[in-house]
Amino acid sequence: MDIQPHDTEPRWKRKAYSVIFESDTPAGRAFDIALLVAIVLSVLAVMLESVHSIDAQYGYYLRIIEWGFTTLFALEYIARLVVVRRPLTYALSLLGIIDFLAIVPTLATLVLSGSRYLLVIRTLRLLRVFRIFKLGQFVGEGEFIVTALKASRFKILVFLTAVFTLIIVVGTLMYVVEGGQNGFTSIPKSVYWAVVTVTTVGYGDISPVTVLGQALASVLMIMGYAIIAVPTGIVSAQMAAPRPTAAPAPLYKQVICHVCQAGDHRPDAEYCWRCGEKL
Amino acid sequence: MDIQPHDTEPRWKRKAYSVIFESDTPAGRAFDIALLVAIVLSVLAVMLESVHSIDAQYGYYLRIIEWGFTTLFALEYIARLVVVRRPLTYALSLLGIIDFLAIVPTLATLVLSGSRYLLVIRTLRLLRVFRIFKLGQFVGEGEFIVTALKASRFKILVFLTAVFTLIIVVGTLMYVVEGGQNGFTSIPKSVYWAVVTVTTVGYGDISPVTVLGQALASVLMIMGYAIIAVPTGIVSAQMAAPRPTAAPAPLYKQVICHVCQAGDHRPDAEYCWRCGEKL
Amino acid sequence: MDIQPHDTEPRWKRKAYSVIFESDTPAGRAFDIALLVAIVLSVLAVMLESVHSIDAQYGYYLRIIEWGFTTLFALEYIARLVVVRRPLTYALSLLGIIDFLAIVPTLATLVLSGSRYLLVIRTLRLLRVFRIFKLGQFVGEGEFIVTALKASRFKILVFLTAVFTLIIVVGTLMYVVEGGQNGFTSIPKSVYWAVVTVTTVGYGDISPVTVLGQALASVLMIMGYAIIAVPTGIVSAQMAAPRPTAAPAPLYKQVICHVCQAGDHRPDAEYCWRCGEKL
Amino acid sequence: MDIQPHDTEPRWKRKAYSVIFESDTPAGRAFDIALLVAIVLSVLAVMLESVHSIDAQYGYYLRIIEWGFTTLFALEYIARLVVVRRPLTYALSLLGIIDFLAIVPTLATLVLSGSRYLLVIRTLRLLRVFRIFKLGQFVGEGEFIVTALKASRFKILVFLTAVFTLIIVVGTLMYVVEGGQNGFTSIPKSVYWAVVTVTTVGYGDISPVTVLGQALASVLMIMGYAIIAVPTGIVSAQMAAPRPTAAPAPLYKQVICHVCQAGDHRPDAEYCWRCGEKL
Repeated sequence: MDIQPHDTEPRWKRKAYSVIFESDTPAGRAFDIALLVAIVLSVLAVMLESVHSIDAQYGYYLRIIEWGFTTLFALEYIARLVVVRRPLTYALSLLGIIDFLAIVPTLATLVLSGSRYLLVIRTLRLLRVFRIFKLGQFVGEGEFIVTALKASRFKILVFLTAVFTLIIVVGTLMYVVEGGQNGFTSIPKSVYWAVVTVTTVGYGDISPVTVLGQALASVLMIMGYAIIAVPTGIVSAQMAAPRPTAAPAPLYKQVICHVCQAGDHRPDAEYCWRCGEKL
Repeated sequence: MDIQPHDTEPRWKRKAYSVIFESDTPAGRAFDIALLVAIVLSVLAVMLESVHSIDAQYGYYLRIIEWGFTTLFALEYIARLVVVRRPLTYALSLLGIIDFLAIVPTLATLVLSGSRYLLVIRTLRLLRVFRIFKLGQFVGEGEFIVTALKASRFKILVFLTAVFTLIIVVGTLMYVVEGGQNGFTSIPKSVYWAVVTVTTVGYGDISPVTVLGQALASVLMIMGYAIIAVPTGIVSAQMAAPRPTAAPAPLYKQVICHVCQAGDHRPDAEYCWRCGEKL
Repeated sequence: MDIQPHDTEPRWKRKAYSVIFESDTPAGRAFDIALLVAIVLSVLAVMLESVHSIDAQYGYYLRIIEWGFTTLFALEYIARLVVVRRPLTYALSLLGIIDFLAIVPTLATLVLSGSRYLLVIRTLRLLRVFRIFKLGQFVGEGEFIVTALKASRFKILVFLTAVFTLIIVVGTLMYVVEGGQNGFTSIPKSVYWAVVTVTTVGYGDISPVTVLGQALASVLMIMGYAIIAVPTGIVSAQMAAPRPTAAPAPLYKQVICHVCQAGDHRPDAEYCWRCGEKL
Repeated sequence: MDIQPHDTEPRWKRKAYSVIFESDTPAGRAFDIALLVAIVLSVLAVMLESVHSIDAQYGYYLRIIEWGFTTLFALEYIARLVVVRRPLTYALSLLGIIDFLAIVPTLATLVLSGSRYLLVIRTLRLLRVFRIFKLGQFVGEGEFIVTALKASRFKILVFLTAVFTLIIVVGTLMYVVEGGQNGFTSIPKSVYWAVVTVTTVGYGDISPVTVLGQALASVLMIMGYAIIAVPTGIVSAQMAAPRPTAAPAPLYKQVICHVCQAGDHRPDAEYCWRCGEKL
């Protein structure tokens, strides 16, 4: 994202950019942390507002806080647009869209009445929490996890395909075995039950009642138990693998014999190993 | 499975074989992916059909789609029989049987009335999804997982025997402790409860009520908690183990120059690297 | 357990001992497998007998089977007593006691009426399944797991102490927070709930209702989630650790200079490295 | 914590300090174990007291036991204050505060009526159990776990941030999807449900009922299933990592005999091992 102001731009703009977008100066770090706190508090306000008893009593204050944060985020969004070199590039980037969406829901309540569905968008602000990982020692650690997961992605995909197939086959089987009774009223419901079981969540809202169903469920559970070892093994092995180190010194001299064209000489060789010619 | 057409067979047959059975040509890959999409869609149709409200409204269209896919799979099955060298060998192979079963259930509804049990067979089509692993980068990854699991199979068997013994002993114990009450109405039911507990699924459809029962259940849970470390450890250790590589070629020739006493020559060196003397 | 017959004992006795107690001859292996099958079938009979509907219909036959197995196990027990050198040593060993207990419950039904509690003892027969691990390739694998667990036992003990402390402190806290309501009627019940939660079993027979209780429970769950990584990590690391290999060839010559008493010479040294004397 | 008595202090004080605070003498170990047993028994008494039926019958004796233990712990606390060099430093240390809190609750019941909240403090006595880890072989093991967790703390923090964001976003989404019905009555409740689900606890006190909700929940469960691999992988990799060892001394002297050109002499060799010449 090439939005950093050029060196030819005014000093205040470059300064503001480093504070708002970067975090390697004390001011930039302070800005990021303040923003983080504001995000967490604003999400907390949204959560509290959804509790009827709290909303009934403190709804008025929560709405004031809500508007305060929205103003704050709007100012921040405008500041970001001002300091970047290419505002449109920023506005259309993922972080830019999230930053924009953070101010939309509250404004929307002015126009729309049923803004309940906008609640979700408000919590998307939380995604900006990941900005914190630009700070200090987190960079390497976050990268380490992401790298390990990326390196394992094909293995995990193969594994998930196998699990999905198992889940759908067993889910259908249970639908037949339990005869569409006891909560297994359709194949999707039975598949939902299979997911709940294989992942060992086990709500118990649907559970087998027939003897055959319980036997089949037991087999599925034992399999789910063994299966969980696979993704864990994949990620563990990936993380325990030695990180690729700097390339070792070349084993051979980067020179070719001018007589016989032989290569791969010892690094300290003075004569060609094939024809004995001085290198 | 030696079903590949001989080089003496007509060109169109060999070409068709490579498209239908293999996936290392663009056409073969396209065929595999198209088949995969058809399988997933057909299973989706089966699943939707089992939902009463959807079946009541769209049942007619779903049945049309169902017949469409059945025709498609029938044509594909016939095509497979035609292009292979030994149709019977293919027809009796595991994949051949699954391919055949994919068209049976819909046809069977013409004859039989209660075809509910055939639903399961239809979802077995999903097993053909594993054909996708013949594609590109999945081969190695799938093999890696299967190899690790195979190498661990005796360890996992020993582990499962221990778990089964624990489950049956504790299940019987709970039957006695809870006195055949609170859902523990027979030993098989108690064993079912023990499986649900050890695997940490915990539906809660059966749960201990007496103090002694709850104490015993707590011990079982803590044990199940520790036990889950074992299969994970086995698979992790197996996957983290360095893959056995071919023994490396000796790095140096076991000879010393008779003039300058230099050693460590290339394995195929004919002249000394230090003084150029014939070795 | 020094119960093996001396070489001076009659041949038939030594032969019988090797068949009954060992499994490195074909006859011994066949005996072990037959015994295994008998044990599993007898436990199955006990389990089926506990199901009311099956007992009502087939109880008569199950009781006959029961007596058949008991006679079989009694004969086996007598045979074991006869062939060993020190019958008392065997009878008082763990396996000897289990073998004896395998025949007690059925006999006890002749005398006692309420033999329900003896059911548990019957399933203890299952512990003899572990004899199978003396067979073939299982020996090494079983030992591998046991060794890894033994090597980790102190780490696991430290870990379990921490978990128990957490469970009891949080259990008490929940008893106070939920005010003895909602199933948290006593500290032991709350502790039982904490075990159910930390192990991620989650029956749901007791679950927090107050806001504070649910918040506290959430913290406990996240902790339990992180905590499960610890025993798995311990066992994985233990299993992934390179097994101690055979001692490498000695680095030094096992000779001491007769002049200066220096040791640790190169394996091919002909002269002392300290004083230059011929070795 | 520099509270150990100086060598100039009376002998009995130094002796008492080593018994009470240390555990490398037989007396010190015996004291620690006795204390451990007293702590466990006292917590057990607190737990039993909270069971109504037991309290009704044995409450009188439990209260006597309670006072007995309180007296014991009070004496121990006074003894600790007497033998240390700086009583205030000890009293304000974490262990000192826990030791003090162990005696407060029982005394408080003399003054206060509703001492229910003091129950929690009583069980904090259990934290003193960790003193046991000063004993023998536990020191290293406990340190090993703590070191591995400490080394992984940033990775785990990054991981937990991601999990929390996921939980809050999905929780809010479910509140909207389930329309504030079926137990998802507020965002905090929905977030609580998301925690219960991601950690695979799955009480089932709240569970999705709408089709969309169950689909979303299935996705969350599969994610939670894959996610649990991450902390386990982190800790496993950390524990499996080779502990940094001191660099090994060079195996051979970097010198070649000027007579016979032999190399690979011992690092401290003065004479050639092949020809006996002074190096």
